[in-house]
Amino acid sequence: MKQFGPLHGITIVDLTRVLAGPFCTMVLADLGATVIKVEIPEHGDDSRHFGPFLGETSAYFMSLNRGKQSIALDLKQPKDRENFEALLSNADVLIENFRPGTMKRLGYDWISLHNMYPELIMASISGFGQTGPMSNEPAYDLVIQAMGGLMSITGQPEGPPTRVGTSIGDIASAMFASNGILAALYHRSQTCEGSYVDISMLDCQVALLENAIARTHTQGNPPQPLGARHPSITPFDAFQTKDGPIVIACGNDKLFQKLCDVLRREELKLDVRFVTNAARTEHQEDLKVELESTLQTNHKEHWLEQLKLEGIPSGPIQNVKEVMEHPQVKARNMIVTCQDPVEGAVPMAGNPIKIEGFPDPGKRAPAPRLDQDREKLIGES
Amino acid sequence: MKQFGPLHGITIVDLTRVLAGPFCTMVLADLGATVIKVEIPEHGDDSRHFGPFLGETSAYFMSLNRGKQSIALDLKQPKDRENFEALLSNADVLIENFRPGTMKRLGYDWISLHNMYPELIMASISGFGQTGPMSNEPAYDLVIQAMGGLMSITGQPEGPPTRVGTSIGDIASAMFASNGILAALYHRSQTCEGSYVDISMLDCQVALLENAIARTHTQGNPPQPLGARHPSITPFDAFQTKDGPIVIACGNDKLFQKLCDVLRREELKLDVRFVTNAARTEHQEDLKVELESTLQTNHKEHWLEQLKLEGIPSGPIQNVKEVMEHPQVKARNMIVTCQDPVEGAVPMAGNPIKIEGFPDPGKRAPAPRLDQDREKLIGES
Repeated sequence: MKQFGPLHGITIVDLTRVLAGPFCTMVLADLGATVIKVEIPEHGDDSRHFGPFLGETSAYFMSLNRGKQSIALDLKQPKDRENFEALLSNADVLIENFRPGTMKRLGYDWISLHNMYPELIMASISGFGQTGPMSNEPAYDLVIQAMGGLMSITGQPEGPPTRVGTSIGDIASAMFASNGILAALYHRSQTCEGSYVDISMLDCQVALLENAIARTHTQGNPPQPLGARHPSITPFDAFQTKDGPIVIACGNDKLFQKLCDVLRREELKLDVRFVTNAARTEHQEDLKVELESTLQTNHKEHWLEQLKLEGIPSGPIQNVKEVMEHPQVKARNMIVTCQDPVEGAVPMAGNPIKIEGFPDPGKRAPAPRLDQDREKLIGES
Repeated sequence: MKQFGPLHGITIVDLTRVLAGPFCTMVLADLGATVIKVEIPEHGDDSRHFGPFLGETSAYFMSLNRGKQSIALDLKQPKDRENFEALLSNADVLIENFRPGTMKRLGYDWISLHNMYPELIMASISGFGQTGPMSNEPAYDLVIQAMGGLMSITGQPEGPPTRVGTSIGDIASAMFASNGILAALYHRSQTCEGSYVDISMLDCQVALLENAIARTHTQGNPPQPLGARHPSITPFDAFQTKDGPIVIACGNDKLFQKLCDVLRREELKLDVRFVTNAARTEHQEDLKVELESTLQTNHKEHWLEQLKLEGIPSGPIQNVKEVMEHPQVKARNMIVTCQDPVEGAVPMAGNPIKIEGFPDPGKRAPAPRLDQDREKLIGES
């Protein structure tokens, strides 16, 4: 086992706040980079004040900033600008998620920084990107999920508008940003040249739409929300049993036939409405009634066990508590804990990027107190 | 403008099928890597047979495989194994998304490959990962969204189970995989050593849960679906106007006060139920009734214009067709086209990783016909 992650030796100066930026630098920190959070004096990252709280400390903040360092700097004050520039002169990456224009007003736009530090990589995350007619407008995750089309295909048919229950508008932009930063790091390793990565949350939502764009193009009409089911594979849906819903996903005819065997509904295999995937999709409402009439005669546990024996992809709809306690999730070290000096052990998601031979500790360093690393970073306290 | 992307010179041998793997290698191809799809003779990637279709060609397949090369090889035949190994000897990355164990049966597990090609990076994407009690079980996106907790927090309160309307189980694993591959490439640039990246779709869903884990820990009970609203920020929801819903997101008191001004409902600012974010969240149902009673007196367009003037984050809930035609999406080159030799121009999502000075063409090379690059790749036709 190596001592450090694959990004060991990389230093990131991190001006980001709240979710998209901090999630991006958490991914990079988990891979071994050193992340220095530069925060506003006194107030710090806004999310230090967001619930849920453990005692006085934001669990929201804790779970996105584990293992990072913190220094409080006012980038409008000459002394702090000197300190900031000293940090940049030793950094590999600068990342920010201010409204476009803010970095320029501070004198730290890409052109100026690239002249001062030609090997520095810079990344910006914003609602709409650094260019285009809406570049300067404000955005939150909800606005981006709505404008990006994801809400239009999530929810029940004819039902009220539904947001994805996690901030995928922020998180997707975080993941594309870390991909861009890593590609720029690779490029720099070949050329010694820094690059500027410009990530728009709206762009990232478009990139998530996958076959919804193809469907819109081929069918002329935009797709609608479908509850839990798949637009073109059937059965691929949530189904009621005696004690609650489970999901079943049959990607081909053979799996559907096995499903009929498990349910002892062999006659459905011969039913003209259900013989091919295309026919099943056309008659999916009828098929659901047939399948549920049998599934409702027994419990979730029973069916999941039977389906598993036949290798039919299926599973329970787990709540977050069940997920946190699931044997596979535990075996993969996907719930790690931080030992916060005041609040004790706090559980949070682990690192899903498992790279053989690199460390993946179950206990992580806690999120920093505001300005806790001042002395180490700039030699003053 | 440079001629090539930041990953120019990197060659990826791609054994993946359907969505998670091909999405990952599309991200890397968009960044300049050469991607060689190794497909099963005659059948090819399963998704060549998935709808929606344009003529005889799968638009699903097209939109995930643009600009890649294709060769058909049967990895059980000695001659094709030689060809495959010749490709690997010139490759930087091998990626696969078979069921765990398949690569070992083919004699191409990580230990064997690392001995043969010490600089090669290998990545695997599977439903549950290469380790743990469920490692060998089958999974589709729906099963992963259900077991990973995302379905438990997506949907209407007390409503039926709801899947995110895009295959986020696959796509999230694709993005974490590309992050892992890029980190391994950076590490190799420093050490000349290849690494093995092991991505589990279930792990990736856990990583998306963000503050839902913290909420479960602090509150003891798992969070429930909330429709379109945010668990702890209010108002941050979809609201009905005279002609349909819009979203409004007020992240602080000042924005809420401005919202009351725009609606000419100044009295709400003084209402004890609504004076702080915590109070508004406690009384969010009452507040929604109050806000909608005014919003329903006028049209979407009217309110969005007024809200924009005051800088209140808000927006329309756009369908996919509206997204594809949106001026900001167009200005950011987020709908690109491939000129398919048979089906003509096909629109698809562009690359959301914008890196200054690198190419971001609006017209992309089409997805390959099965085996089209045989002669170029192995010198035979």
